[in-house]
Amino acid sequence: MLTMFERLDAAAAKMGSYVCVGLDPTPDRVPIDDVLAFNCAIVDATKDVVSAFKPQFAYYEAMGVPGMVILEKTIQHIRDVAPGHVIIGDGKRGDILTTATAYATAMFEVWDVDIATIYAYQGSDSVEPFLQYPGRGVYIVCRTSNPSSRDIQDLVIDGSDGKKQVFDRVADLADRWSGTENVGLVVGATYPDDLRTLRFRHPLPHFLIPGVGAQGGEAEESARAGSNELGGGFVINSSRDIIYASHNPEDFDVAARSAAEILRNQINDGLKKGSIISQTISIE
Amino acid sequence: MLTMFERLDAAAAKMGSYVCVGLDPTPDRVPIDDVLAFNCAIVDATKDVVSAFKPQFAYYEAMGVPGMVILEKTIQHIRDVAPGHVIIGDGKRGDILTTATAYATAMFEVWDVDIATIYAYQGSDSVEPFLQYPGRGVYIVCRTSNPSSRDIQDLVIDGSDGKKQVFDRVADLADRWSGTENVGLVVGATYPDDLRTLRFRHPLPHFLIPGVGAQGGEAEESARAGSNELGGGFVINSSRDIIYASHNPEDFDVAARSAAEILRNQINDGLKKGSIISQTISIE
Repeated sequence: MLTMFERLDAAAAKMGSYVCVGLDPTPDRVPIDDVLAFNCAIVDATKDVVSAFKPQFAYYEAMGVPGMVILEKTIQHIRDVAPGHVIIGDGKRGDILTTATAYATAMFEVWDVDIATIYAYQGSDSVEPFLQYPGRGVYIVCRTSNPSSRDIQDLVIDGSDGKKQVFDRVADLADRWSGTENVGLVVGATYPDDLRTLRFRHPLPHFLIPGVGAQGGEAEESARAGSNELGGGFVINSSRDIIYASHNPEDFDVAARSAAEILRNQINDGLKKGSIISQTISIE
Repeated sequence: MLTMFERLDAAAAKMGSYVCVGLDPTPDRVPIDDVLAFNCAIVDATKDVVSAFKPQFAYYEAMGVPGMVILEKTIQHIRDVAPGHVIIGDGKRGDILTTATAYATAMFEVWDVDIATIYAYQGSDSVEPFLQYPGRGVYIVCRTSNPSSRDIQDLVIDGSDGKKQVFDRVADLADRWSGTENVGLVVGATYPDDLRTLRFRHPLPHFLIPGVGAQGGEAEESARAGSNELGGGFVINSSRDIIYASHNPEDFDVAARSAAEILRNQINDGLKKGSIISQTISIE
């Protein structure tokens, strides 16, 4: 059986696209009245130029129970029209063992996402229940794309193996399960030096890279820095720049597809120049 | 207007109880077929001996959309039968500014909880949207009760203000908003030395203290260590030891009440001996 990250790499290779579309709808920004119809139209319009979709749970929870029904139906629609695509459930869950087990049930059995984003602040207990699903995966929140991520993530730990930042120790924790091949990392595009450093120190885990576009990260550079020696091992997520590329109810879907294609091409241009880790290794 | 933590302290003083009941139902452990009826029976039986209820969102999400309806109706039932009690929504959410705003909407406007638990791993951006609701509050996950919490939380940071563990730096972050009086901390009962240290270094924030009972924490000692100079400023949560005190459909509610009373008394015995911080200060 392929691991989930092998499946994701295969989907990206097949589609020729390392783009993940973030499905983060808010009723007052969506250009039509029906949020589910909006999501379905975005999926239909972009599915040929991307390999993954990432619903951000917060936006559905903010709509209450009807929002959770929209989430459920959106996931079902992706399964129906894009069965080879990977669905990343972005809820950033994390808790003690018994509660993490309930979260894993919710993510993998109820919402049926392929990969869940999680926090590892509570340590290995909070990760392990998600690994009881060998065909699924998790991305541990490691280095985030927001300005204040430095508050905690950048703090320097003076350990027996030298000085390291908190985010790097979180990545070390993920390496504990690198043998299972279903633990990846969330590493934002807005700190390109850290993205490069993390890829060098952690060559194996898959990276979910948010933060391009609206948040300021640069796609071509992120693809080169975040990809592994084989030029894969990552997806780059864009939400607002794709789903809100146009606020016109007549053409928002066409505009979303164009935005996704542009991002796909920027990433592929980066990959043509080669991943930084493979070039550095071949120079050595 | 009272801050939410002032309201919680007032509720605890009025009820003579610093107990929070964790409403964490799993269908295969609940002794009757109807999870909502179970929750309502637990609330009805314990409301006179506790001051707060804490639904853990994971358990409702694991039941899918029907679970979210149970959550909604449970919260409504608490409002109906125990209007002075405080409801803590335990979802441990955390994300970048735009997404955290959606989570704050979900917690405070949709689910209508009084206090939300959140992660601050992404820094101040991820906390601030929750502070836009001045009558509500948050508990930032700081020092958790589980065995593997040491993986990240115990790491030692060598900063300009000396050596500190990660959890202590998270508490420092909470102190940034101590003036707003609506940021508290989650500090587990299973590490009593850390609980005491955190109370000394951070005398102001309210503490949510999980981990007594099934997880091994000791209630009397935790009350003495976690309470502030006035002998308040905390609640101690117990979930499984109360809601599953009996697996008999005939008496689970009576047993839950007894378990909550025992915990209330243990805490009150601790408070009679005095909070450690106030005794230490008066000796000095």
